[in-house]
Amino acid sequence: MKRLSGTNEEISRILAAEQLELSRQNLDVEEAVRQIIQAVKEGGDQALRDYSEKFDKVKLTNLEVGQDLIDQAFDEVDPTALTALENAKANIESYHRQQVEQGFEDQPSQGVIRGQLIRPIGRVGVYVPGGTAAYPSSVLMNIIPAKIAGVKEIIMITPPQEHFVPAILVAAKLAGVDKIYQVGGAQGIAALAYGTETIPKVDKITGPGNIYVATAKKQVYGLVGIDMIAGPSEIGVIADDSANPKYVAADLLSQAEHDVRARAILVTDSAELAQAVEQEIEQQLTSLPREEIARASVQNNGRIIIARDADGMFDLMNQVAPEHLEIAMDQAYDYLDRVQNAGSVFLGHFTSEPIGDYYAGANHVLPTTATSRFSSALGVHDFIKRIQYTQYSQAAVNLAEKDITTLAYAEGLQAHAKAIEVRNDKN
Amino acid sequence: MKRLSGTNEEISRILAAEQLELSRQNLDVEEAVRQIIQAVKEGGDQALRDYSEKFDKVKLTNLEVGQDLIDQAFDEVDPTALTALENAKANIESYHRQQVEQGFEDQPSQGVIRGQLIRPIGRVGVYVPGGTAAYPSSVLMNIIPAKIAGVKEIIMITPPQEHFVPAILVAAKLAGVDKIYQVGGAQGIAALAYGTETIPKVDKITGPGNIYVATAKKQVYGLVGIDMIAGPSEIGVIADDSANPKYVAADLLSQAEHDVRARAILVTDSAELAQAVEQEIEQQLTSLPREEIARASVQNNGRIIIARDADGMFDLMNQVAPEHLEIAMDQAYDYLDRVQNAGSVFLGHFTSEPIGDYYAGANHVLPTTATSRFSSALGVHDFIKRIQYTQYSQAAVNLAEKDITTLAYAEGLQAHAKAIEVRNDKN
Repeated sequence: MKRLSGTNEEISRILAAEQLELSRQNLDVEEAVRQIIQAVKEGGDQALRDYSEKFDKVKLTNLEVGQDLIDQAFDEVDPTALTALENAKANIESYHRQQVEQGFEDQPSQGVIRGQLIRPIGRVGVYVPGGTAAYPSSVLMNIIPAKIAGVKEIIMITPPQEHFVPAILVAAKLAGVDKIYQVGGAQGIAALAYGTETIPKVDKITGPGNIYVATAKKQVYGLVGIDMIAGPSEIGVIADDSANPKYVAADLLSQAEHDVRARAILVTDSAELAQAVEQEIEQQLTSLPREEIARASVQNNGRIIIARDADGMFDLMNQVAPEHLEIAMDQAYDYLDRVQNAGSVFLGHFTSEPIGDYYAGANHVLPTTATSRFSSALGVHDFIKRIQYTQYSQAAVNLAEKDITTLAYAEGLQAHAKAIEVRNDKN
Repeated sequence: MKRLSGTNEEISRILAAEQLELSRQNLDVEEAVRQIIQAVKEGGDQALRDYSEKFDKVKLTNLEVGQDLIDQAFDEVDPTALTALENAKANIESYHRQQVEQGFEDQPSQGVIRGQLIRPIGRVGVYVPGGTAAYPSSVLMNIIPAKIAGVKEIIMITPPQEHFVPAILVAAKLAGVDKIYQVGGAQGIAALAYGTETIPKVDKITGPGNIYVATAKKQVYGLVGIDMIAGPSEIGVIADDSANPKYVAADLLSQAEHDVRARAILVTDSAELAQAVEQEIEQQLTSLPREEIARASVQNNGRIIIARDADGMFDLMNQVAPEHLEIAMDQAYDYLDRVQNAGSVFLGHFTSEPIGDYYAGANHVLPTTATSRFSSALGVHDFIKRIQYTQYSQAAVNLAEKDITTLAYAEGLQAHAKAIEVRNDKN
C-alpha cells in the first residue's frame, strides 16, 4: 500500500490527479471497437460468427443458448449453490421492490392537469462476461431490478464457451431472463444496439465487461441507453482505532483480488491501525490463491491515507467517491450523514463488503472511478422512464396566453406564440 | 410533409432506418472537439481566452459575468417578461417538487439493516447557448430541478456576448444560479469537466447546445455526468377526425421553426385530416418570420403517416418515441395508457405543445431521437444520487456465511470468502 501524507489539501490534489489518470481514454481501443461495431452493423449474424471464431476460437452453430443447455445447467449446478442463489434472489428482490416509484398527478389550477407516468423500458440487454470473470451474482443483480421494473423482454448475452458455468445459466433463469445468446465483446454490444437477423435490437444495455465491452457501450450510447461505464473495482475503508486490522485487511484484499487494476484505499486517523493493517495484508496475501493479482493491485493501487480526525477522513473519502465504502467504526450508522459520495456503504465492523456482493440485497453494480459523485447503484430506476403529461382546457390556455406569448416573442419564436393564439376563443 | 404509407410493418421499417441515420456520429467533429478539450485541459483559462477570440470574436477580460452585468439585466428586462418568468418559475417549481424522492430503510431480519439515502450532486454546470438560441425558459428548466434537489453549487456558462440577453441573466438569478461564466462551445464543456484556474470542475453538466457542445458532452461523459445528448427538436401529433387542422398545423410548425433539422410527425387515421393539415401548414407558413427554417424542416423531415386505427397510431408513435407527443383526440386523457415512449405528452385539443415549453411546469429538456425509449425528461432525479447502505451484526453475518462463501468459492474469489469467515465468532 502506498502512503499518501500531507495536509488534506495536498492529499486532495494527489487524489484528483490520480482520478484524472484513471479516466483517460484509450484511443487505440476506441478505433478497434469502432470497426467491430461497423462490421456487425453491416454483417449481422455472419459478423458475429466470424468474430466468435477469431476472438473466442469457437465455431458457432446456434447463436441462441437453447433450453437443452439451460436444463443441463440445472442438472449440473451444485445444490448448495442453487440454494444460495435462491436466497440471494429473495434478498435482492425485497431490497429492490422498495425502489419502485409511483407516478403523480396534480391539478394546480382550474382546467389544468399535470402528471408523471412511470413506464418500464421495453427491451433490455444484459452483458455477462465469460470465463473466470463469469459471476452468477452479477446476473441476478442486473436482471432482477429490470424484472421488478416490469421490462417486457430481458435478453442476456455472454461469450461462447465450450461448457457454460452452470450457475450462470441457472441464475439467469431464476432471475427471469427471456432469451440468452452466446456472443461477447464489442461485437455482442453491437448486436444488442443494432440488432441482427437473430438478436433483436434492445433499448438499453447493462452489465459489466472488459475494456472492449465498456468502450463499445460508450460508443453505442445515444442509440441505446447504457447503465454506466464500469471501471475496476474499488473499496474505500474508513477506520478508526476501534477497527479490527484483521477484518480491514481481509476486506481490502477481497476487492484487490478482482483485478490488478482494482483499488483498495484505507483512510484512518490511527497510525497504529494503518501499520497493523499493512502487516495483516502481507500475512493474509500469502494464503490467497489469487495472491499474484491481489499483490499487484495492493502494490500499484493500494493507498493508506492518514487523516487528522473524523472530519478529515470523511472529507477525503468523499473525494475518492469509492464504489464500495466501509465505515469500520463503532456507531458507524451515526456517521452515515457524512457520506456524500459512495456507491454502497457497509456499516460497522461486521458488515464485510462481500456480504453486499452476493447477498444482502442492495445492488453490486456500482459507480466506479469517482463517478458516485454523480451516479448511483444500478436499480429499478434504471429500467423505467418517467413520462410527463399536461392537459389545459381552452379557458386555461387563454388565461396563460399573455405569459406564454410574451416569452415566445422574447425568444423570437413566433410560431410558438401563434400556436397559443390560434386557440383563443376570441379568434 | 413526406407521406409514409404501407402496412404498419413497412412504415415501421422506414422509421427504423430513419432513426439510425439520425443517430450517426460525425467523426470530423469528434476529432476537432477532442483537440479543443485537450487544449483546455492543458491551457486552462488562457485556452478559453484564445478560443473566445477565435470562435466568438470577443477579447475577454473577465471570465465571470459579474454582479454589475446581472444588475443591469434586471434594469433592462421587460417587466412583462419578468412577470412571465416569475409565473413560469412557480409552475416549474410546483411540478418538480413532486419528483422529490425519499430514501428508505428496512430490517429484513434480526441484526440486518438495509437502506437507500438520497443525496444531491455537489456541483452542477449548466450550459446555455448564446445568440438567437438563447432561451431564458431553458435556463429555468435546467436550474430549478437542480435547486430543488439541493445541489450546493450551480454554475452556468454561456458564450460571451457583446450584450447579454437580459432575460437570460434574469432567469438564471430567479432560478438560483450561484456563478455565471462567459464561455461557450466545446471549450466551455471542457472547462466544466476539467476545471481551470477560474472555473471550478463540476460533477455533472446539463443543458442543450450545438453539435460541438453535444459532442464535447459525450466525450467528457464518465469523468463527469451529463444529462443527455440532445438532438434536434421533435413533435409527434396523434390526431383523429376530432382534431382541428388549424391547431395541429400550428403545433407542428411551432417545432419546425426551431431548426431545419427539427422533425414534425403527424400520425392520423383520417386521410381527410391529413390533407387539411397539409393545407393549413402551407397557409400558416407564409405568415411566419422564421418561414425559411420551418419550411425546410417540414419539407425534409416532416412526415404524415396514415394508420388504420387508434392501435396503429399508437404503435407507430411509440416507435417514433417523440420528444413531444400531442394527442389531439377527444378523451385524450383516456389514451394515456397506450403511451409507451415519449418525453412529454400534451393531451387534448387545447394543450398546445408551447404551453409546456414555457409554462405549465413539466420540464422541456427532453429525450430526442427516439431516446425516450430508455430515458426521461430532465428532473430532480437527475440531480441526486441514491446511496445504498447495509449493516449486518456478527450473528447475522455468521448466519449468512454458508450461502455467501458458497457463492464466493463458486466464483473463484477466495478472498471474498475469507473476509466473511474471518468474522465468524468461532474463529
